[in-house]
Amino acid sequence: MMLSYIFVIAITAEAMSGALAAGRRNMDLFGVAFVAFLTALGGGTVRDMLLGNYPVTWTQHPLYIYLTIGAGMFTVVIAKYMRRLNRLFLLVDSMGLVAFTIIGCNIAIKLDYHLTVVLMAGMTTGIFGGILRDIMCNRTPQVLRHELYASVSFMVAILYLGLIYLQVNENINLLISFVFGLTLRLSALKWKWSLPVFSYSPGRWND
Amino acid sequence: MMLSYIFVIAITAEAMSGALAAGRRNMDLFGVAFVAFLTALGGGTVRDMLLGNYPVTWTQHPLYIYLTIGAGMFTVVIAKYMRRLNRLFLLVDSMGLVAFTIIGCNIAIKLDYHLTVVLMAGMTTGIFGGILRDIMCNRTPQVLRHELYASVSFMVAILYLGLIYLQVNENINLLISFVFGLTLRLSALKWKWSLPVFSYSPGRWND
Amino acid sequence: MMLSYIFVIAITAEAMSGALAAGRRNMDLFGVAFVAFLTALGGGTVRDMLLGNYPVTWTQHPLYIYLTIGAGMFTVVIAKYMRRLNRLFLLVDSMGLVAFTIIGCNIAIKLDYHLTVVLMAGMTTGIFGGILRDIMCNRTPQVLRHELYASVSFMVAILYLGLIYLQVNENINLLISFVFGLTLRLSALKWKWSLPVFSYSPGRWND
Repeated sequence: MMLSYIFVIAITAEAMSGALAAGRRNMDLFGVAFVAFLTALGGGTVRDMLLGNYPVTWTQHPLYIYLTIGAGMFTVVIAKYMRRLNRLFLLVDSMGLVAFTIIGCNIAIKLDYHLTVVLMAGMTTGIFGGILRDIMCNRTPQVLRHELYASVSFMVAILYLGLIYLQVNENINLLISFVFGLTLRLSALKWKWSLPVFSYSPGRWND
Repeated sequence: MMLSYIFVIAITAEAMSGALAAGRRNMDLFGVAFVAFLTALGGGTVRDMLLGNYPVTWTQHPLYIYLTIGAGMFTVVIAKYMRRLNRLFLLVDSMGLVAFTIIGCNIAIKLDYHLTVVLMAGMTTGIFGGILRDIMCNRTPQVLRHELYASVSFMVAILYLGLIYLQVNENINLLISFVFGLTLRLSALKWKWSLPVFSYSPGRWND
Repeated sequence: MMLSYIFVIAITAEAMSGALAAGRRNMDLFGVAFVAFLTALGGGTVRDMLLGNYPVTWTQHPLYIYLTIGAGMFTVVIAKYMRRLNRLFLLVDSMGLVAFTIIGCNIAIKLDYHLTVVLMAGMTTGIFGGILRDIMCNRTPQVLRHELYASVSFMVAILYLGLIYLQVNENINLLISFVFGLTLRLSALKWKWSLPVFSYSPGRWND
């Protein structure tokens, strides 16, 4: 199925993004492998643990483990060319965001969770890998601060679930969701769309 | 039941505390919603995942999700008045700490865990939301450093479990535990009671 | 069984390492207890939650809870002598790394996980406590950056699983794995062996 191919490409891209973040913290090769793995498969892991969806997906697909760690190591080798690949990278990362979101929704649907939880399962799969990456690299999660990212995951999930509700054919649904998600994400990157920021300076409380 | 009302008020207050912390990191609206949710419901989520208490509580009560995210958004609007509400806020936060602790204990009791684990389940519910909030905001968890907070959770749990053991009527137990917990927490805030601090300066080991 | 004794010594040592890290962040006594507990038992907890191995091990052994928290408190008292105990400490920590790794592998084997997952369960048990300690203390996990540590866990797991495959007697296997792991870890400390570091300076992507 199409979605599986995109998933495989997506975890590769996410693993590479994790490896680069690890490199910025001067981690050793194990650190790179670990952060690559966590960035790529951490979102799905958190989703499975939240939903009680055992066994956790990647434990049944060792190939995903080799692939993400391999992609992390490969990134070390080709790091100096990564900037030139920037555009390709952003495209693949965006495809991953959409694919992760849809896969996450589908798993929660199968487990009969409430619609709102389905939505959150999709978003968790989409964005939690990046959050874990940033925690491991000791920085405030980027996904909570920058261009539309979580919002894209949210809107893709809404659209995908809406089209399921309207009983649109699965393949057409996937096509529409991907076109919509990629367009939204790439537009956000190009024109620097972002959500309003909330800035609060500290008072006595909770200093 | 009284405890449920207090719980609903408490998660609202915790969500607001999360939103303010997110604002101090200049997060966007999604970041605010996410940290608000995590601060309010993260403690119970960690408890459920630790105890294997599936499905995780909030997945069965979508209302909690809307409420915490709504409270986070509302905080953005009224942020400039928050300092004036400081006292009310600390009161509600303290009620939340007691309510979370008791609810956490009750869930572990129902699952037949050892008394020490019951105690830890209560404390986890009480304090882990704040810990997750601080991790997301990239700061050392405040609860591990400031005025009595975790200790209040600990002592409330001890008292509540002791009164259960003495077969005190549930409502009276709740009343006593709340009066005790609020008094202790508010006194700690007023007179800046805190636990002794352990300061250690680095040597060769583990630098 | 020998492994249990070593495990008990190991969680004590890990708890002390956690307490020292908490002291470097000027945490209060609760913070010390919490970080001590998490450093010692957090790796096994993450492993159990990943593998769906409920109930989580320490919830069935309250003794481990008392022991780790007690060790944390004890560390506060003897902190000024800790530097002199440095060598003993590193030895015990290394024994813990090996013991944790082997115990983690054994649990995943019993649950019939794929060999690669068994390996990862061993490593998770060995290193995740230290990662959680560093996250709580708001620093980049040391285990991802310094002398061979995760790599020792990895190689011990490989050796141990290899000897199981070769049907070597369990006690002999343990003996060989410990001698190998300790030698490797202590040599790495002595001669500062480490994995190559990946350094990447930020470009536009993912800034």
